Amino acid sequence: MVGEQGILGTTGKLDAALDQWAEYRDAVQNELQKIVNRARPSLRNVLRYHMGWANERGLSAHGRPGKFIRSILHVLSCQAVGGETARVLPSAAAVELIHNLSLVHDDIQDGSEERRGRPTVWKLWSKAQAINIGDFMFALAALALLRLERHGMCDEEVIHSFRLLTEACTELCEGQYLDIEFENRINITVEDYLNMIRKKTAALIAASTSTGAYLGKGREKAPHFHEFGEAFGMAYQIRDDILGIWGAEETTGKSTEEDLRRRKKTFPIVYALTESRDKTKLERLYTQKHFDDGDVRLAAQILNQCGAREHAQDLVKRYCQRALEQLEAAGLTNSRQAPLMDLTHFLAERTH
Amino acid sequence: MVGEQGILGTTGKLDAALDQWAEYRDAVQNELQKIVNRARPSLRNVLRYHMGWANERGLSAHGRPGKFIRSILHVLSCQAVGGETARVLPSAAAVELIHNLSLVHDDIQDGSEERRGRPTVWKLWSKAQAINIGDFMFALAALALLRLERHGMCDEEVIHSFRLLTEACTELCEGQYLDIEFENRINITVEDYLNMIRKKTAALIAASTSTGAYLGKGREKAPHFHEFGEAFGMAYQIRDDILGIWGAEETTGKSTEEDLRRRKKTFPIVYALTESRDKTKLERLYTQKHFDDGDVRLAAQILNQCGAREHAQDLVKRYCQRALEQLEAAGLTNSRQAPLMDLTHFLAERTH
Repeated sequence: MVGEQGILGTTGKLDAALDQWAEYRDAVQNELQKIVNRARPSLRNVLRYHMGWANERGLSAHGRPGKFIRSILHVLSCQAVGGETARVLPSAAAVELIHNLSLVHDDIQDGSEERRGRPTVWKLWSKAQAINIGDFMFALAALALLRLERHGMCDEEVIHSFRLLTEACTELCEGQYLDIEFENRINITVEDYLNMIRKKTAALIAASTSTGAYLGKGREKAPHFHEFGEAFGMAYQIRDDILGIWGAEETTGKSTEEDLRRRKKTFPIVYALTESRDKTKLERLYTQKHFDDGDVRLAAQILNQCGAREHAQDLVKRYCQRALEQLEAAGLTNSRQAPLMDLTHFLAERTH
Repeated sequence: MVGEQGILGTTGKLDAALDQWAEYRDAVQNELQKIVNRARPSLRNVLRYHMGWANERGLSAHGRPGKFIRSILHVLSCQAVGGETARVLPSAAAVELIHNLSLVHDDIQDGSEERRGRPTVWKLWSKAQAINIGDFMFALAALALLRLERHGMCDEEVIHSFRLLTEACTELCEGQYLDIEFENRINITVEDYLNMIRKKTAALIAASTSTGAYLGKGREKAPHFHEFGEAFGMAYQIRDDILGIWGAEETTGKSTEEDLRRRKKTFPIVYALTESRDKTKLERLYTQKHFDDGDVRLAAQILNQCGAREHAQDLVKRYCQRALEQLEAAGLTNSRQAPLMDLTHFLAERTH
């Protein structure tokens, strides 16, 4: 489960910064609804439920639809190179569909029963239907991209967007392969882990920003936007990992250590498993059959002693710094790079 | 599970007819291998296993790779309008990838433990990885289509192929939704069933033939090829349903009634459930908790008494007739339509 811990930090600075762009989130949702509404009622209702637009019986609801961070970055990247934001709404919708299909499938793979505070799609409609709904979203993402033509994009632009986003999808699957494989491995290095999240999380964000810049007629700047998005994605995921362990503590003062309890191998754990002087003890905790409250406390202690949290936060800052350097290298005017710079700063500084 | 019963009829006429086009099957496999070989070793090995090219440890093997009926129809449709077959190999590969991803996911959804005489992907690599591999194949299908450009297709042709195949994918998912839903329903009409297989099986075959004709520069003939493929697909699936119940009897004289044993609601069953005078008895058999050998025999008797097999075979012939009419309507020369006509005749007449 990736990229969703942030909901713990709904009062966080990044969320507040994203809310400044609520009009884009609304515009992307509007575009998404046009695509989803073309589907047959049966499939449409499942999609509407997943997106938070409907309850499980298909009646209108106002669930949390997610942050839309990928599509907002896409639109802002287009805007940053002087492109017209309304024209990239179809590709923004495609990016959200790809991300959301990965969540629907991820929840089956993880056996997660809740997402955004509600039962997951597989929990309500069966695993078989949830696999199918994810596949359907993949097809809808392609149909969404084809809508770029109506928004005045030429054939070459449509095809190049297909290429960038499809390549990100292959990386996403490779990352997912590694993530699943890591569940049964204990000897994961920090490098292994960073390689996994580069694929699983950062690749789609990098494709979102580079495609946004490319479609905004900033073809020569697109590689910088790719690097920007990748660094942003790395920071975002590691920040997410921090919140997964210390998130509730940061917001409420009380530790839940949710990711520890589930023995997820996120960055701080991988770091401690390789760097802590108590790594053998932690390894034993992470491979033994049972894991009780005392074990959670012990694991937390080991993390604290080796400075896993500080090291992770330091890495977040370094990736944010790299992201900012890429914006700089793209040679944008100050006013144009401001929104992306702001988001990056908020991401680095988000301590609650 | 769709479109695979035909392996029972490896001595069948359709298979023999397809074997005439073994050179196309080889060419498509060759193209597929180029695409698959670009993937990381871990994912590549799973794909190679599924396609029958490798054993589960990644070593070369010669498993049954499937009939390649969709891609052969695609190539023959291109050829029928005078197109150059080598140029549509990437789209032929895309069609096979879409079909095969649907098989990988279908096996998880059905809980099928065997495919083409070997353990299914999920059985060897876990359901989580099999979901992921299917997603990966979806992305590879898109990358395969993008290779059309290298084969001299223009942007517009690539985009239109994307549209036709993506729309078929949405239909495939709608069909899959219905198929899964039917498992828990007994009141399925013949019309419901035909609508389901039109989406689940016929839509991708129709997209294969229409895209083949379109890319072969037969744009104005493509709608006839769509209708041809759809009718062919309907006949193919109903023929498959017949083989699923009476296949072994047809080839070996001994009935296995595999689909009856699994209480699958294929065409003959749906027909009997609505038309047989013993439909209430059959309904009871299909909803009761247990189902023993005596029940299988009873169900087979009910099918025989109401002429379900003859009715199904009659429908196969009618769809084949419709397919032939569409070839006629496309206005091809005799020599050009011959291969597709032959395949259709063999499909209709295949009695073993």
